Amino acid sequence: MASPINPPRGMRDFLPAEKARRERALSVIRSTYAAHGFDEIETPVMEDIGRLQSGLGGDNEKLAFAVLKRGLSGDELHRAADDGDVLALADLGLRFDLTVPLARFYASHRTELPAVFRSVQVAPVWRAERPQKGRYRQFVQCDIDIIGEAGELAEVELISATAATLEALGLRDCTIRVNDRRILTGLLEHCGFDPARFPAVLISVDKLDKIGAEGVVAELSEEGADAAAVLGGILASFERHAADGGVELTASAITGLLPPGIDPDAVADLETLAAGLAGLPTGVRLRFDPTLVRGMGYYTGTIFEIAHPASGSSVGGGGRYDGMIGRFLGTEVPACGFSIGFERVVDLADLAEERSADSVALVHDGTVSSRVLLSLKGQLLQQGRRVRLERRTKNMKLLLDGLAAAGFASFAYVESGVTDASALSLHPLG
Amino acid sequence: MASPINPPRGMRDFLPAEKARRERALSVIRSTYAAHGFDEIETPVMEDIGRLQSGLGGDNEKLAFAVLKRGLSGDELHRAADDGDVLALADLGLRFDLTVPLARFYASHRTELPAVFRSVQVAPVWRAERPQKGRYRQFVQCDIDIIGEAGELAEVELISATAATLEALGLRDCTIRVNDRRILTGLLEHCGFDPARFPAVLISVDKLDKIGAEGVVAELSEEGADAAAVLGGILASFERHAADGGVELTASAITGLLPPGIDPDAVADLETLAAGLAGLPTGVRLRFDPTLVRGMGYYTGTIFEIAHPASGSSVGGGGRYDGMIGRFLGTEVPACGFSIGFERVVDLADLAEERSADSVALVHDGTVSSRVLLSLKGQLLQQGRRVRLERRTKNMKLLLDGLAAAGFASFAYVESGVTDASALSLHPLG
Repeated sequence: MASPINPPRGMRDFLPAEKARRERALSVIRSTYAAHGFDEIETPVMEDIGRLQSGLGGDNEKLAFAVLKRGLSGDELHRAADDGDVLALADLGLRFDLTVPLARFYASHRTELPAVFRSVQVAPVWRAERPQKGRYRQFVQCDIDIIGEAGELAEVELISATAATLEALGLRDCTIRVNDRRILTGLLEHCGFDPARFPAVLISVDKLDKIGAEGVVAELSEEGADAAAVLGGILASFERHAADGGVELTASAITGLLPPGIDPDAVADLETLAAGLAGLPTGVRLRFDPTLVRGMGYYTGTIFEIAHPASGSSVGGGGRYDGMIGRFLGTEVPACGFSIGFERVVDLADLAEERSADSVALVHDGTVSSRVLLSLKGQLLQQGRRVRLERRTKNMKLLLDGLAAAGFASFAYVESGVTDASALSLHPLG
Repeated sequence: MASPINPPRGMRDFLPAEKARRERALSVIRSTYAAHGFDEIETPVMEDIGRLQSGLGGDNEKLAFAVLKRGLSGDELHRAADDGDVLALADLGLRFDLTVPLARFYASHRTELPAVFRSVQVAPVWRAERPQKGRYRQFVQCDIDIIGEAGELAEVELISATAATLEALGLRDCTIRVNDRRILTGLLEHCGFDPARFPAVLISVDKLDKIGAEGVVAELSEEGADAAAVLGGILASFERHAADGGVELTASAITGLLPPGIDPDAVADLETLAAGLAGLPTGVRLRFDPTLVRGMGYYTGTIFEIAHPASGSSVGGGGRYDGMIGRFLGTEVPACGFSIGFERVVDLADLAEERSADSVALVHDGTVSSRVLLSLKGQLLQQGRRVRLERRTKNMKLLLDGLAAAGFASFAYVESGVTDASALSLHPLG
């Protein structure tokens, strides 16, 4: 413990003003998703450690906080030490995302849920990352998922609901980039990379934003100079097309950008998705990006990511993960999800300040009885007001500024002898 | 893992109907406390393990889930095994209540907070208790606390805000029992118990509800037969007074029930509190109970507990803990809090069902294009409706029942060729 009074490393306290702002943003998100027909669920913050470490969470699995078994014996400790197996000491872990718990939830409750289940989860997750600016070890994710719908209607609904939520939060100029994992695979096949090396190649492609087409080609020369050169040509061509605000998500743009021989189902699905979203009544821009990778290995089809000009990294993303639920359930169930990174979105959101004209602070000097103060407070509460009792201080300016900052619209001094709230003189604040 | 798809032992998933009910109850609680002038804050779910195990949490400390340090070496494991010190492997723990984190929060942020700080916390806590009916390993607490107010106004505001919240939740027939730790101590001194044995004696007194005055006396005979007999007389007298609905919290009842020689400050404070609460505009009953103990060792003055006829154990409780903040801050700060046990309250709450007349389900047969479906959905959303797209199934009764249960008021079949929402025929549901 460096300092005994700070929150743990990489985690935050929220003071009233920030907490109120976060709750307002969460309320906008919840109500927009509810209007779009999604149902909120909740799972425990912990899952069995074996489930969290089952390979579905990619690199995030290594970042899971593990919870010590209770009542461990000396023998168990020695055995774990001898085996070098620290995780043998843990039975639970804190979830690092909301997708693994959702898959487990769906497998557990499938018979109680509709055939096509639209879920909302708005909840914290934990990752033991090296703390850095804008990255926290506890942060909130807002996920919507549609389970049981194999058609592009799932993607259409997820993207339109997410776009509506971004609009409701006042985020302007968002771009949703769309791709399909099968298109990525097709591109790598077309270039001639070794299929066993696809995951490593995709890690390089994922850096296109940062290092450019030339940088990617340089990184990939070891994977095959010829293949890297072909890919470089495709990336450079995409960069030229994308330079002026990206490539619109339309059938002609999709087929125009891709070399021949790409999975025709993937192309057709993306074209159907583009048609479905053509009527999207929103200012959010949709862009086709054949170089979009998304890190998680469980994606099987469409993938998407939200960019915002004021944020260096994406503010959300998602995709289709048809194989994952089957890992828990034993039978394949199609699934698709879209997650908003709440911490980034809440910083960018344009939320109206909450300040009720009815809120009033009663300032007293400590001589008025608590019975009278409670009675005055009760009378004002009966009028539907928000009321705070404040003890008078030497520095009244500081007190009144604090009340204005806390959203109070007016205050009144409680003079000795006043028992009827209608006799109070209200003064405006702020 | 007994079953790979269940939540961890003692923890629960919440399906949409239950989650919606919980969110409605939380919204009532938050808005009532906000109206009463309290400000919501949030702290991380984890705290340094040393802070959680510092002796402030009583028996709950033993129930804390401990989080494994990351990157433990074999040497550290062997050393912990040799020393039999499992906790040396943990650096963090999940909070077991909201009071220890609040004290840490206040110490950390004191300069940013008003002189008298009224906090609300509505958040989960974790305890590795043996799971049993109505007891969970993850559960929500709703705490209000007033820090920096030494007078009875703190108790008056806490009790009246809690009573208003219980009323707003539709809980009828609540009783709030009130006592003072100093009165308890005074009673035990009056009886002649050994002050070193007071904690053990209080554990027996705390069982009065279950084993009666005779049972308590029998248990305490080893602590001194004379002292036990004197206490037995006081308890029996209280039981007679309390038989008919308890003892009202009034000055005369308080002094009438107590033997002479009890701390006059404690008695005077309770009388002032009684006077302050006399005008409480609520159906919640206030009762004086000189046998009320409350388990936590950190209470220094007033203590209170909420009973409800439909609940075997208390639905909430709290008290004054003037010494605790000083443990973190180094200077004494008066503090008082009242916590509602959300899991019990939400079961008892009488909440209006949420069913918007504007909600509509669009039932389609899979042949209508997603573009048309999204357009119809968008038109209805523009009208301020909640909309869900549903794929037609063989068992339409099951589908429609499910929609009604999910709170949808009407549905419409989407026929091929319909592109304008005004052409849809809405049918009522449920």
